[in-house]
Amino acid sequence: MTRIVEDIFHGRIISVRREEFELPDGRRAVYEMVRHPGGAAVLPLLDDGRVILIRQFRPAGGGMVWEIPAGKLDPGESPEQCIEREIQEEIGYQAGKWEKIGEMLTAVGFCDEILHLFLAKDLNETEQALEPDEYIEIVPIPAEEALKMVDRGEISDGKTQLALLMAKRLGHI
Amino acid sequence: MTRIVEDIFHGRIISVRREEFELPDGRRAVYEMVRHPGGAAVLPLLDDGRVILIRQFRPAGGGMVWEIPAGKLDPGESPEQCIEREIQEEIGYQAGKWEKIGEMLTAVGFCDEILHLFLAKDLNETEQALEPDEYIEIVPIPAEEALKMVDRGEISDGKTQLALLMAKRLGHI
Repeated sequence: MTRIVEDIFHGRIISVRREEFELPDGRRAVYEMVRHPGGAAVLPLLDDGRVILIRQFRPAGGGMVWEIPAGKLDPGESPEQCIEREIQEEIGYQAGKWEKIGEMLTAVGFCDEILHLFLAKDLNETEQALEPDEYIEIVPIPAEEALKMVDRGEISDGKTQLALLMAKRLGHI
Repeated sequence: MTRIVEDIFHGRIISVRREEFELPDGRRAVYEMVRHPGGAAVLPLLDDGRVILIRQFRPAGGGMVWEIPAGKLDPGESPEQCIEREIQEEIGYQAGKWEKIGEMLTAVGFCDEILHLFLAKDLNETEQALEPDEYIEIVPIPAEEALKMVDRGEISDGKTQLALLMAKRLGHI
């Protein structure tokens, strides 16, 4: 039994509401809730063992942030379709082979975003096509060096850290 | 040069605004921005090699979610103080030894939250003290089993996945 207490904001990416929920013990409480359509992120792996990272302008990250390509799901879009689109738009590549490596709740304390994590192989270059609010540099980098950037705290974006560590654990890099 | 275009919401945990920023190439764009005070999360490691996970009621996660103890920073509070408080309140433990293992941007596409990740050792039981909107079960579990829960997708919370994989990579578990 959920009740919307206050409908606050409907944006381009997120909606914000105050919602009341019943806890498992029967108590009721009101939570600040950011509703998000979900998204997908992809670690692109080149044949020579490098991964393609991006440096992206992120106001919420205080400037340029090391990331992997990612985007939110458009209406009716599957995570696979989303990733195919984003990898083409953001870095100008098409992938011959996809593998899902995980799924993460990004900020479960206040937001329902689920991010689907993929690995992409058999990459072919096409053409980058950025959105008006995007500024992205493409940086291919040896996978082991990318993992060291996680160790040293130079990569601080959660999805990027997680995709690299998961890909390592699964033996892909 | 930042400009607040619309000041939308000031909540207990988050604030929501539309803000205009200048991109590195001089273009200007407006972003939906969730402002968050930042937080800290801790992987508690028992002497017998088990980690303490929690199952927590999370409306944004659709019900009970596997997590590690975490919380937002109170005003003037350091990540270390936050974690000391949360580990006591959420699972009823005090730690003799702390180690920072990483830092993550949880959802850099729209939110400025930075989450500081810690490992806690030399644990002593005290008493749990939950907030009115919290419902938490405490589940000590062998570290290797927790890692397998990440592999199988049973642990889907990003900070919990990342803390476990980082602790493994650093040789703590």
